[in-house]
Amino acid sequence: MSPRPMARPGGRSARVQEAVHTAVRDLLREVGRDALTVPLVAARAGVTPSTVYRRWGDLRELLSDVAVEHLRPDADPADLGSLRADLDAWAEQFLDEMASPAGRAYIRDALLGDPDGDNAGRCSAYAAQQIEAILNRAARRGEPAPDTETLIDRVVAPVMYRILFRPGHLDATYVHGLVTHALGGR
Amino acid sequence: MSPRPMARPGGRSARVQEAVHTAVRDLLREVGRDALTVPLVAARAGVTPSTVYRRWGDLRELLSDVAVEHLRPDADPADLGSLRADLDAWAEQFLDEMASPAGRAYIRDALLGDPDGDNAGRCSAYAAQQIEAILNRAARRGEPAPDTETLIDRVVAPVMYRILFRPGHLDATYVHGLVTHALGGR
Repeated sequence: MSPRPMARPGGRSARVQEAVHTAVRDLLREVGRDALTVPLVAARAGVTPSTVYRRWGDLRELLSDVAVEHLRPDADPADLGSLRADLDAWAEQFLDEMASPAGRAYIRDALLGDPDGDNAGRCSAYAAQQIEAILNRAARRGEPAPDTETLIDRVVAPVMYRILFRPGHLDATYVHGLVTHALGGR
Repeated sequence: MSPRPMARPGGRSARVQEAVHTAVRDLLREVGRDALTVPLVAARAGVTPSTVYRRWGDLRELLSDVAVEHLRPDADPADLGSLRADLDAWAEQFLDEMASPAGRAYIRDALLGDPDGDNAGRCSAYAAQQIEAILNRAARRGEPAPDTETLIDRVVAPVMYRILFRPGHLDATYVHGLVTHALGGR
């Protein structure tokens, strides 16, 4: 993916990011995390190592950036006709993605190469955006609903805390219980 | 801290751990994390680098072990006469410790040098033990109380999630609100 002639700087910059992210994802599959180096990524992406260092700092920060991109939702949550059904489905999918071996590795990468916390903040913003989409739908249906921060505290936080600090106890029954409670059930 | 003659293996092993942990804590203050190396730690602790590598694997795993030791509570939660008062005081202290710059650095170290999740699990077990001490007291007083896992989900998880992923919003008012809610208030 070498930049086309006359490419706008923004356009080129976007293509460099895409090429480097793709190189990292491919090399993670092909050679694994331990064999990954910036020169290897740069060669695969068709850029110079200094381009990678200038833009990402080091390999850990690049891996963190790639991880957050991977954790970005690619679609709005499904509309299943009610707040309860939408939250149940979203929370179950969130658990499946985050608790999977790949999800856990991406969460660790996102936190590890993130000295200032920006990437972790992006992960949380993605979850908040999905919840807001569900809440906006509920509002259009006239359903009463808690606010986004309440759902972050009562559904997202327990799932992420247990993935990182307290394994076990994590299944669909557990997240449905969190949703029931967040919606005012006991 | 060289082992005394006739020291039992367990005793020597405990002294090596203490010497290495002390060396790490001192060097973190004196030279900072970026300048820390296993040979530097070993020299300060009076052991060989191979002793450190054999026991801790690498510097990140050693830092993780030191971090978890630092996060171990050194006393039972204060007994203030009621479940509500004990939980408020403990949650506020937990927030102060974990959200401080040192606390955040130790949490990151604990998570990041912890491939198998054991150290993160120890951090969570420490919080659970403190909560259990508070709940046992409440039971002796005859106070109704939620169980430990409920308090982990409703108080510990939101605080830790926001420290790691969603900064801001973290103050005494916030944690007292979590406690109110965890105890059945809205």
